[in-house]
Amino acid sequence: MRGAVMHAPGDVRIEEREDPRILAPTDAIIRLPATCVCGSDLWSYRGIESIDGPSPMGHEYVGVVEEAGSEVRNIQPGQFVIGSFFASDNTCEICQAGYQSSCIHREPIGRNGAQAEYLRVPLADGTLVATPEIPPDDLIPSLLAASDVLGTGWFGAVVAEAGPGKTVAVVGDGAVGLLAVLAAKQLGAERIIAMSRHEPRQKLAIDFGATDIVTERGDDGVARVKELTGGLGAHSVVEAVGTQESMMQAIRSTRPGGHVGYVGVAHGVELPGEELFFSHVNLHGGPAPVRRFLPELIELIWNRKIDPGKVFDLSLPLEQAAEGYKAMDERSAIKVLLWV
Amino acid sequence: MRGAVMHAPGDVRIEEREDPRILAPTDAIIRLPATCVCGSDLWSYRGIESIDGPSPMGHEYVGVVEEAGSEVRNIQPGQFVIGSFFASDNTCEICQAGYQSSCIHREPIGRNGAQAEYLRVPLADGTLVATPEIPPDDLIPSLLAASDVLGTGWFGAVVAEAGPGKTVAVVGDGAVGLLAVLAAKQLGAERIIAMSRHEPRQKLAIDFGATDIVTERGDDGVARVKELTGGLGAHSVVEAVGTQESMMQAIRSTRPGGHVGYVGVAHGVELPGEELFFSHVNLHGGPAPVRRFLPELIELIWNRKIDPGKVFDLSLPLEQAAEGYKAMDERSAIKVLLWV
Repeated sequence: MRGAVMHAPGDVRIEEREDPRILAPTDAIIRLPATCVCGSDLWSYRGIESIDGPSPMGHEYVGVVEEAGSEVRNIQPGQFVIGSFFASDNTCEICQAGYQSSCIHREPIGRNGAQAEYLRVPLADGTLVATPEIPPDDLIPSLLAASDVLGTGWFGAVVAEAGPGKTVAVVGDGAVGLLAVLAAKQLGAERIIAMSRHEPRQKLAIDFGATDIVTERGDDGVARVKELTGGLGAHSVVEAVGTQESMMQAIRSTRPGGHVGYVGVAHGVELPGEELFFSHVNLHGGPAPVRRFLPELIELIWNRKIDPGKVFDLSLPLEQAAEGYKAMDERSAIKVLLWV
Repeated sequence: MRGAVMHAPGDVRIEEREDPRILAPTDAIIRLPATCVCGSDLWSYRGIESIDGPSPMGHEYVGVVEEAGSEVRNIQPGQFVIGSFFASDNTCEICQAGYQSSCIHREPIGRNGAQAEYLRVPLADGTLVATPEIPPDDLIPSLLAASDVLGTGWFGAVVAEAGPGKTVAVVGDGAVGLLAVLAAKQLGAERIIAMSRHEPRQKLAIDFGATDIVTERGDDGVARVKELTGGLGAHSVVEAVGTQESMMQAIRSTRPGGHVGYVGVAHGVELPGEELFFSHVNLHGGPAPVRRFLPELIELIWNRKIDPGKVFDLSLPLEQAAEGYKAMDERSAIKVLLWV
């Protein structure tokens, strides 16, 4: 089959990869109509995370089940399914508490490489959620968004306790940040402050429900959020970048007793204990347990209540994956969909 | 009046201080039958926090109202009252959300020096809570504990979400840690792991409700907590020390999705963002909003449901405050009460 492989920073190629096959009786093989490039793929693309030799890429996927292992019970060949970037058994104590991305049997999907024609999904029963029927093509981008960026933005908004009466600020205007805006709106937030200096992203944020745009960053961004919130800071702040600056901006934009939901994969972040102590913020986040939210998100998409697929502002055939990476790296695209 | 003044690390003296008087119409002056030495007083006693010249000491207090300013409405002279280490208006949006120790008008009591015969309490209406009547002497230690260490341990247990069905671990066997054990018990925790290597403290922990004692520290302590919790870690961990080691021990002892309540005043702590991200723990804490809990805590003490005063294992006259500091510094006493 054809699939994306990263050979070095900046060097992603579509090449022939071995067809995946059932390795464990709990596996399933799915055929992908589409996949996409994630902001987190850029960490290795930019050389900030190192790779260990040529690496299959991609961890976001939807598709039709081609084959299911002998112990798979809930998922049948022919179904259209969505899963997330960690396979999970969905039965252990951690999964049952809603933290499937820390499942005691979790397996990262990324190493199987979802930017490809086919994908092996471990723990299929616990990982995959089927749609009511085969979706029309125009729903595929939104369903694909649910696999990671929507689920991640949603988790950020949930742990930031976005809801009625709340002012929510979102740090980061990538796909996750923009979908955290959508999530905050769905969760009933009263006011949603999107922090962005890029006009197309500002427009999408407003389309998703943002009520205010803040273009300032760092301390100036914090000051602006405080200005908008009677000097107190936002009740809820979603951090969707993962750098020291963005984490501190999120913490400092939050009022005492407020909640920071941080979902940007942390890179080089060191949090000063004293400042955190006296900030009185609640801090929670990490790799989103997207599986927790998939049934609800699929229903919202299926009934066309939300359209998270709008974050894909560039669609390319899989063969042009390299171009897709480049567009995201240069921020000329918010998120790139790859038709397989 | 007589009061404690720190002149330098290790040098606390009882000397003549000016009698406090009403400065703002919202102040009250109280006469203290007892006060005490706090673990956090040791940061400056040990020279870890610097002081700016001779400093009145103490921030824990109970007492009888001697005089109330002209705008004080809820508190009358003659009442026996308890307050906490930050004066708060108890009406601002932050107070109403339960974070009185981050009140927009907060004033630290410490700079007024509660290790003394009299104390000026700002914002008396928002800060002080009166007991039903003048308490018998034997209740005074427990009521005094409510002023800080009980309220702080309680906050730690509440934000760690101690409760029915939960396994709670407590890092730190000072007065706050021991009272977090008591709080976890009162909140209905199923299992309470006290981390202590000191026999008298272990005994008090068991008396307060601990079901398990772990003597190991650092990584060994973490491994032991995991062993006791099916490899997962505790649901709830209270951190009651404030050092890098204790914070990391607390975070690593918590299962994914679990809660760390950190109430040890952080000193020199830097939290690694990546580890925190992938730990999936909820992190919350800071200076306890004791005022939030005072009515409930006073009721529990008044009805003799709890006896937090047991943490005072050394009682001295105020004149011997220096000896009290020394005993706490050497850990020969858990907590020292000073009769005035």
